Amino acid sequence: MKVNGKPYRTIFLDDDGWRITVIDQTVLPHEFRLLTLASLDDAGAAIKEMKVRGAPLIGATAAYGIALAMRGNASDAALAEACAALLATRPTAVNLRWAIDEMQKHLIVAQENERVEQAYRHAAKICDDDVALCSAIGDRGLPIIEALSSEKKGEVVNILTHCNAGWLGCVDWGTALAPIYKAHNAGINVHVWVDETRPRNQGFNLTAWELSKHGVPNTLIVDNAGGHLMQHGLVDMCIVGTDRTTRNGDVCNKIGTYLKALAAQDNDVPFYVALPGPTIDWSMRDGLKEIPIEERHHREVTHIVGRDQGGNIASLQLAQDEVKAANFGFDVTPARLVTALITERGITSASEHGLLSLYPEFAALS
Amino acid sequence: MKVNGKPYRTIFLDDDGWRITVIDQTVLPHEFRLLTLASLDDAGAAIKEMKVRGAPLIGATAAYGIALAMRGNASDAALAEACAALLATRPTAVNLRWAIDEMQKHLIVAQENERVEQAYRHAAKICDDDVALCSAIGDRGLPIIEALSSEKKGEVVNILTHCNAGWLGCVDWGTALAPIYKAHNAGINVHVWVDETRPRNQGFNLTAWELSKHGVPNTLIVDNAGGHLMQHGLVDMCIVGTDRTTRNGDVCNKIGTYLKALAAQDNDVPFYVALPGPTIDWSMRDGLKEIPIEERHHREVTHIVGRDQGGNIASLQLAQDEVKAANFGFDVTPARLVTALITERGITSASEHGLLSLYPEFAALS
Repeated sequence: MKVNGKPYRTIFLDDDGWRITVIDQTVLPHEFRLLTLASLDDAGAAIKEMKVRGAPLIGATAAYGIALAMRGNASDAALAEACAALLATRPTAVNLRWAIDEMQKHLIVAQENERVEQAYRHAAKICDDDVALCSAIGDRGLPIIEALSSEKKGEVVNILTHCNAGWLGCVDWGTALAPIYKAHNAGINVHVWVDETRPRNQGFNLTAWELSKHGVPNTLIVDNAGGHLMQHGLVDMCIVGTDRTTRNGDVCNKIGTYLKALAAQDNDVPFYVALPGPTIDWSMRDGLKEIPIEERHHREVTHIVGRDQGGNIASLQLAQDEVKAANFGFDVTPARLVTALITERGITSASEHGLLSLYPEFAALS
Repeated sequence: MKVNGKPYRTIFLDDDGWRITVIDQTVLPHEFRLLTLASLDDAGAAIKEMKVRGAPLIGATAAYGIALAMRGNASDAALAEACAALLATRPTAVNLRWAIDEMQKHLIVAQENERVEQAYRHAAKICDDDVALCSAIGDRGLPIIEALSSEKKGEVVNILTHCNAGWLGCVDWGTALAPIYKAHNAGINVHVWVDETRPRNQGFNLTAWELSKHGVPNTLIVDNAGGHLMQHGLVDMCIVGTDRTTRNGDVCNKIGTYLKALAAQDNDVPFYVALPGPTIDWSMRDGLKEIPIEERHHREVTHIVGRDQGGNIASLQLAQDEVKAANFGFDVTPARLVTALITERGITSASEHGLLSLYPEFAALS
């Protein structure tokens, strides 16, 4: 999407044909800083230090990290080492493992002297495939917003979102934000309520930034505000992403999503979840019981990062010393609260029946 | 309640018999700083700068502010001036007006040379009456916690609260926290989940501080977390305060309360609201339609206050420049989501019938 009028992806090849550029997401929204990756170590550090984040982008960065490694040494041993080093940067990221496996599978059968070219070509394909996937989600979701706009006779369509499921976490378009960008690009009058998304504030830091830079009108709200807005008719639809959705349509997403889904149901506001097919976990049938919820460091709750008066990124302690804090990263929104799922293959109900109608190839798997 | 083992009220007479001490709540939870009020101006500034906050405490501070004014000049003109000056500090605070009216009514009929003594006596009575009111709410609510403790065979009773309805906003005990203090003091095993309560963070700043200082076990959570906790059986009851409750039991309270009430209902967790009788607005029958919701400055959303590494209170900007933010201060939880109201006169359903059974004197008023 656009930044200051110029189209960007979150990761792209430099003009020199070999170095990689990413956006340093740790300094957003205060600074738009591009970061050059010239080695395996650079790529590993970018992932580990969360300068890049979001499953697809982490995978894409790892893929290019292997390409960079191959430039120095394209031996089997170097390939194995690069894969292991990247995998260790964020060991629980499923997409990271997937991208590394993809690259390894592809390169191990290639001649050593072809591996650099192959690696760059395959990393580019991983990126392009993700862009196509997200774009398709956008195209599938667009008619929902078009219909609301028609119903409202062209008046602004107010959309609430939680956390960041935008292009910053992918390569372009995003998932939940893809239909919004498509609608905005099509000239539909949209406005987004951006949840802060404590404790890591991805709403303020990332979602508001990327929407604003692309020119999509948006307003920041604290996580407490969505219910009130829905009670007063100020939200026409909600749309969020998901980290994992079960076979029966239970949606695991950033902590707080469930509370918004409850408010949406209580006020007859449609609640949509946008997701690429690979996010569906076909092995699970009960999200609440089966999805493990990550507990993260309490410092994310007791401290906060922002920009100080001197313009520097700084951290403040919010809580008194020696206080206990709990930090659950995600919650599960039961399928019954989800109006529909928007995938790259179409829109369907949040149910096993619905999901299998789009992905019949998983019917046998259980 | 206790701070470092010593019992405190939020406002009290110095040993010298005339100066007033309050707790500077703007530096909590990072510092426990007592503030001496020696003049009308001191009292006015404490209210205006929100060093004291919470309806009853604002009223009590204004009452003592008038007493301090009378020491210098106890004329009718000085009394009128003092009342006007205090009323201007926070013009929309209902309790402020009430306390000033009380003092004025009382003092205007007294001889000038008796006004100082009368003023101190009446201000003390305003404080003592509030303590008695809050203590009664605690006594009425205590059996609810006792019953849960019995059901759980003495295992810890987990209670979720939002914002600060504790002794810091009153003179002692608080409203929502009063039953918790009573239970803790009675040896019942209680633990409180403290909602951060963005944007002003009264949960972290005030509730966690006062609970910890009195020795009540508590854990900080972001506002997004309550739903997840309730889904997993980690909350036995919710209890919150209210700024205004309508005749039919609709509860206006700090923004985000409604979302917690929805989660409580969805998970069969009882949701209680503690309130003193004067908080009931007998003139309103539909909270959602009739209660005006204050929109506050967007800076509360886009900036945050905490303690920097040097130990100083500092502010950080969370959002990018030139971004829009909305800041609704309160929301309304419909009566249907409230398990019961806990008042100084007893526990009742959130309904006109229930409230009139406790306050029959308001039956005629509509």
